Amino acid sequence: MSSTAEPADPVFALHAGGKLEVRGRVRLRTREDLARVYTPGFTRVAEAIARDPAQVYRWSIKRNTVAIVTDGTAVSGLGDLGPLAALPVMEGKALLFKEFAGIDAVPICLGTTDVDEIVRVVKCIEPTFGGVMLEDIAAPRCFTIEERLRDELTVPVLHDDQHATAVAAAAALINAARYVGKELPALKVVIAGAGAAGTSTARLFMQLGVRNVVACDRQGVIHGERPDLADAKRWFAEHTNPGRERGSLRDVLAGADVFVGFAGPGVLTPEDLRTMARDPIVFALANPHPEFLPAQVRSLVAVIATGRSDHPNQIDCGLCYPGILRGALDCGATRIDDGMKLAAARAIAALVDPAAVARGQIVPDIFDDVAPRVAQAVIDAAVASGAARLPASCDPPPVTARRPAG
Amino acid sequence: MSSTAEPADPVFALHAGGKLEVRGRVRLRTREDLARVYTPGFTRVAEAIARDPAQVYRWSIKRNTVAIVTDGTAVSGLGDLGPLAALPVMEGKALLFKEFAGIDAVPICLGTTDVDEIVRVVKCIEPTFGGVMLEDIAAPRCFTIEERLRDELTVPVLHDDQHATAVAAAAALINAARYVGKELPALKVVIAGAGAAGTSTARLFMQLGVRNVVACDRQGVIHGERPDLADAKRWFAEHTNPGRERGSLRDVLAGADVFVGFAGPGVLTPEDLRTMARDPIVFALANPHPEFLPAQVRSLVAVIATGRSDHPNQIDCGLCYPGILRGALDCGATRIDDGMKLAAARAIAALVDPAAVARGQIVPDIFDDVAPRVAQAVIDAAVASGAARLPASCDPPPVTARRPAG
Repeated sequence: MSSTAEPADPVFALHAGGKLEVRGRVRLRTREDLARVYTPGFTRVAEAIARDPAQVYRWSIKRNTVAIVTDGTAVSGLGDLGPLAALPVMEGKALLFKEFAGIDAVPICLGTTDVDEIVRVVKCIEPTFGGVMLEDIAAPRCFTIEERLRDELTVPVLHDDQHATAVAAAAALINAARYVGKELPALKVVIAGAGAAGTSTARLFMQLGVRNVVACDRQGVIHGERPDLADAKRWFAEHTNPGRERGSLRDVLAGADVFVGFAGPGVLTPEDLRTMARDPIVFALANPHPEFLPAQVRSLVAVIATGRSDHPNQIDCGLCYPGILRGALDCGATRIDDGMKLAAARAIAALVDPAAVARGQIVPDIFDDVAPRVAQAVIDAAVASGAARLPASCDPPPVTARRPAG
Repeated sequence: MSSTAEPADPVFALHAGGKLEVRGRVRLRTREDLARVYTPGFTRVAEAIARDPAQVYRWSIKRNTVAIVTDGTAVSGLGDLGPLAALPVMEGKALLFKEFAGIDAVPICLGTTDVDEIVRVVKCIEPTFGGVMLEDIAAPRCFTIEERLRDELTVPVLHDDQHATAVAAAAALINAARYVGKELPALKVVIAGAGAAGTSTARLFMQLGVRNVVACDRQGVIHGERPDLADAKRWFAEHTNPGRERGSLRDVLAGADVFVGFAGPGVLTPEDLRTMARDPIVFALANPHPEFLPAQVRSLVAVIATGRSDHPNQIDCGLCYPGILRGALDCGATRIDDGMKLAAARAIAALVDPAAVARGQIVPDIFDDVAPRVAQAVIDAAVASGAARLPASCDPPPVTARRPAG
């Protein structure tokens, strides 16, 4: 028995034998049950779907089932631990899907890191699933994989680390700006870390109206004259840093209203935050080890939020992905577009009571029935943009009815 | 709404929204729960598995989770209906896994029929699963796919249509021979249909001691001088038909003790059975439409069994695969060898009380707690053959404890 796995350790005790099970939604106690849900009953249903493939959304698990796909190369902030080690993390993601949105999610941990192969495998397993969530795949491969799957699959695809994190951060930004009395277009936002989450967060912030976003990687500020930029970072060079600033993260932090960290401890010291504009907003989102713990910087800033569940103002993708996929599945969305993500962010922000915002709470509690509101906002946006394609014959279950009773 | 899908139809009503769900095995009600089973708790478990990959069998779902893989080319006797139509059938298989053996099974319906691609996809998704069941893949591709996966995967692989059906038929043969008072080595067995199930059944019967097996395809008896035989059928030419018989199915049926049909109605008439030896044994196993219904032939034969749940003596793979996989998972088997299959067949046969055999009951009722006995027999055989590799540190759950309470 390893030293991390004492029987008395409540974390390991809860993981023993895995955190998920696959159960029947129907009774199987008599030969009559067997003849209906097994042979020969299921052959009639198979024939009905063969005649009209759209009926698979009605008579099978497809409509409510999502694959959580990873290659284990960027496991929850810990790096390339491989697909076996990723399994408990994917199980945790599936738990939230079920608990908060009634979605049946299946971990699919892949023993390959080849982009073409990952795309091909996900395409091959698509028939079982109503949606796909990509999880913990290292940048920049994750961008290519998501782009290709969005083009090649008929079911919606969400890259959790990029888009769900960005949606949570955008919701937090809306309320943080309100708390400090600043307008979004007037903010200067500095982002440390130009990977999956940094890229999507910058894009979504700009769609919210933020004009001045400056991103940094380990080499410093990203600007148009940097000769070393790969594809994903070229986007930053072309669309951010309108003041053409250069230098280090510390240099561009001077005068900034917001700092967003996806880089981990050590990129800045608490003292560095003193050069920011009045009422600094700090989102220290590296996980499990954020850039700052609240106790270190509380006296220096107006808002400090992290990704950890053991501190207030947790900015976590768990606020977003269950509701986004719930909405996408319920309206038969073929894609998850920017309008759907913005609608999700605004719905999450609106869940915090104005009086609570005035006291500095910028994100709702994950147990505050977030997913059904997000789902409804996503459905409305999908109908507006044309992403929803629901055939009327498929009888969508109402959002709330899908929440498990027990 | 299609004509086969009336709301009052109990079969379709039970299939609405699918027959399975993925649920948590742990509570998720408080922020403390969240910190243990989600972030940051799951990162500690991920790190423990990264340090010692064998721990994945202890702290994740892998140990109890099976992929049911199909390409939809041979859906439950109906042929190539495609992967979407196969989904309700795979869900039915998963229901039996859970109900009878406590196994969590996930349908994986593949949008490809390419052998190399199917092998590659299953290898890529292997990290999540403790075992693989191949289902409803057309012959002869299914043979190649199973063979390659048995070589290339580290988890056990069972091709349901071949081996589970063969095990059920072998169990039935043991008791049917006892009922009519004949010895297995003295039997002449004629098999109609040389596909997946026919091949594996012939092999298993011969391992039970049957010496005279004669197989027929649509062209008639398979013998060594047939010029048209592909790989899978060459096995029959080389290992069966010791009397070098030629001609039609009807020709070789004369004097046979046992007829096994995997061919469907019309290959024989009830009158043809009159040429068989005394006390004919007939297994009419085409599904959902058997070669004979019991009412047609009861006066002509000593034993009539079918694959249908609405007639007595149902020879169904559902008697076998839950217990075989339960045993394989519990002893950490790397493969499912012939000894394990024979042990399963003998265990199933032994479940029918001798007094019941004397009244003509040759297979147990599927609700008679078959799987735990099959699992124990499979474990004993795997330990004897060396197929079991269970590391002691992995704490196998006892077989019976895995049966769901509800």
